[in-house]
Amino acid sequence: MNWIQIKTKLSRSFLPDTRYLIGVSGGRDSVALLHWLISLGYKDLTVCHLNHQLRGRSSEADARFVKRLVERYNQELAGNALRLPGARTGKRSARHATAGRIEFELASANIRALAKKQKMSVETAAREARYAFFAETARRRNCSTIFVAHHADDLVETFLINLFRGAGSAGLSAMREISTRRIDGVDLTIVRPVLCVWRKEIDDYVGEHRLRFCEDATNKNLTPLRNRIRHRIVPYLEKTVGRNIRQNIWRTAIIAADEEKWIESEVPDSANAVLSLPKLRALPIALQRRALLKWLRAQNVSDVGFDAIERVRSLADRDVRIAKVNLPGNRHARRRAGKIFLE
Amino acid sequence: MNWIQIKTKLSRSFLPDTRYLIGVSGGRDSVALLHWLISLGYKDLTVCHLNHQLRGRSSEADARFVKRLVERYNQELAGNALRLPGARTGKRSARHATAGRIEFELASANIRALAKKQKMSVETAAREARYAFFAETARRRNCSTIFVAHHADDLVETFLINLFRGAGSAGLSAMREISTRRIDGVDLTIVRPVLCVWRKEIDDYVGEHRLRFCEDATNKNLTPLRNRIRHRIVPYLEKTVGRNIRQNIWRTAIIAADEEKWIESEVPDSANAVLSLPKLRALPIALQRRALLKWLRAQNVSDVGFDAIERVRSLADRDVRIAKVNLPGNRHARRRAGKIFLE
Repeated sequence: MNWIQIKTKLSRSFLPDTRYLIGVSGGRDSVALLHWLISLGYKDLTVCHLNHQLRGRSSEADARFVKRLVERYNQELAGNALRLPGARTGKRSARHATAGRIEFELASANIRALAKKQKMSVETAAREARYAFFAETARRRNCSTIFVAHHADDLVETFLINLFRGAGSAGLSAMREISTRRIDGVDLTIVRPVLCVWRKEIDDYVGEHRLRFCEDATNKNLTPLRNRIRHRIVPYLEKTVGRNIRQNIWRTAIIAADEEKWIESEVPDSANAVLSLPKLRALPIALQRRALLKWLRAQNVSDVGFDAIERVRSLADRDVRIAKVNLPGNRHARRRAGKIFLE
Repeated sequence: MNWIQIKTKLSRSFLPDTRYLIGVSGGRDSVALLHWLISLGYKDLTVCHLNHQLRGRSSEADARFVKRLVERYNQELAGNALRLPGARTGKRSARHATAGRIEFELASANIRALAKKQKMSVETAAREARYAFFAETARRRNCSTIFVAHHADDLVETFLINLFRGAGSAGLSAMREISTRRIDGVDLTIVRPVLCVWRKEIDDYVGEHRLRFCEDATNKNLTPLRNRIRHRIVPYLEKTVGRNIRQNIWRTAIIAADEEKWIESEVPDSANAVLSLPKLRALPIALQRRALLKWLRAQNVSDVGFDAIERVRSLADRDVRIAKVNLPGNRHARRRAGKIFLE
């Protein structure tokens, strides 16, 4: 996939003259995505930056950097002759663009405190806070589509993280090119235009266009495991197995994501506080697990892992005499009169 | 999961006094499985050994070893007091068992020639030949259930091989504790009683019971990639990510297998030589891929990979003008009048 193919695909589904949000940490990837979208004629953009307060002054510097970046684009757009480098030639070409305006939305969250309070990893807390901020902005701006800069290496790394954590296939499909998430009553459409672009290609783009960016922007390098996967495990696998391994894992992740989308749609909703055992038993094992995951999450059980799901699922086993199992956060699931409920 | 739990689970579904086939290469795992099953009272067993002719005299020695092993068990069973070591105490205990008879089935196949002729890897050719032999024996012996000795590390390694080859989620679920395969008109039930037992635990069992086995039995060590995964990649991941990584990958593989079983059942059959485009388009992407895979295989297209499936799938895209795509083995898929067919 090259930049022109991606462009065609993107602009077919997301017309350039519509308004969109874009998440910009100030790091290399999001800076490149913002530049690329503006060069394609997307001008009605709202840049969203969340200060995660994870690196003190450095985090504030990132926020200032993104603010200035937006101001600079606005000056260029106001000049009505946006000078953007030619996409693939490396030659600078003057492109005439009708005036647009890039908006800037800034928020700040104490991620470390949030993580501690909600008993999440810092990375999870950061992601949740970011999407809550995106959703809130989407509601206020009446614009529910956001571009984010996840690329192919991010997908491979996330896939491996979830695999190594034993997340099961639901976890193997963390990212899709287009996905929707309902957050605080807002249906946010998350678009990842460069999910099929490798980090190396983004590096080339950044070099070619001499873009400035923040070296260690907030949403990167949050987890030691991701760092180890990026800097040690993936290179080791490439050396030991072969060059095409990233491409192969990427492909598996994409297939898994498409299957997940469909499986999700097949899982019965279970907003009820009580779960019917006969109904649960009637499902194939794969859907039993999904249905339980959905149900436990709806009942606000945090950190639902495979073990918790299997414990609750064992209540549906006629040969198992135990009628009460433990769940995270000192909660319990109990079986009584053909039903499962929480305590 | 310990040996007693596995025993309970196994003997509940597969009663010990019924007849079963068992695949025995002569290697550590299958020798342990055979010993364990006999110690549990499974006596009506038919040991199936395929000489893969991959290591000349050494392969013949393996076959002789398995034959003698069967003879020895028969002598013990005929003596009517089967002396088998106590399962977990290490103490030898005399167990009285009613006489049984272990049968022996031997066949031989030139796997290298087969692989060359059918353009398969040696590992794939060996597996196909083995299962064809199992199915043929199942028909002749009127016994359609076979025990095989795949263990938890095999599952993890196979999962990683398929992931690294980009097999997609269908490939991620290569092994299940109980699965069925239709081979040459025989519905073979394949049971893997020790799929949740680690190699280390089998080693311990073998050591505890002082079992003799062939060091390099045929169905092992066929692929350099599997060797690299076993001896380099898994240990590297354990060192870099953590001890529980094998357990986590195992869990993902088990979930994937259960989901695959269900997804397979949802894929429409397509024995027709011609595929309807409207019907294909009506399926979610995940099922389009499965349906195409099933269809291409039914049309005897060999080596169907993700790329081939995506090329054929592109024929269903209204925006794509191409009406003919290439397939492996110099074959082609063509779109005409709302249908896809092969040439």
